[in-house]
Amino acid sequence: MTYHLVVEVLPKDGMLDPQGDAVQASLAALGFDQASAVRVGRLISLTVQAASADQAVQLGEQMANALLANPVMETYRLAVHAT
Amino acid sequence: MTYHLVVEVLPKDGMLDPQGDAVQASLAALGFDQASAVRVGRLISLTVQAASADQAVQLGEQMANALLANPVMETYRLAVHAT
Repeated sequence: MTYHLVVEVLPKDGMLDPQGDAVQASLAALGFDQASAVRVGRLISLTVQAASADQAVQLGEQMANALLANPVMETYRLAVHAT
Repeated sequence: MTYHLVVEVLPKDGMLDPQGDAVQASLAALGFDQASAVRVGRLISLTVQAASADQAVQLGEQMANALLANPVMETYRLAVHAT
């Protein structure tokens, strides 16, 4: 069966995030000074062939740990949708 | 009130996504050949001060259109959570 995986990768709390700081400064310069705690991460969307949703989740975790996220500096969240 | 916004930005369907192609090739090289249709985008997480959830959504859309996403090449999805 085909499953749609979405992996959301963000810098860990406490890690410096210069990209987030730059976006926050740009937002403030555009007048959006209500915005704070801006963090910038990656979003990876993919489809996998798997026998079950459990297997799709397991595959997603293996892929996230092997390539998609850096476990030292980043956290990730995984969502699985049947398609 | 404080709201937590998450903006998910992905290349539009049909747009070339060389980063996604590179990730898919790397996944395949690691043995994850079940993965296909890999797309790589950005995730922006931020908090805003707003009077209502409606106003927070409106602010998020304005920020996405002004800075966070490129409407020519990218689509975005906005989620609002009360904190």
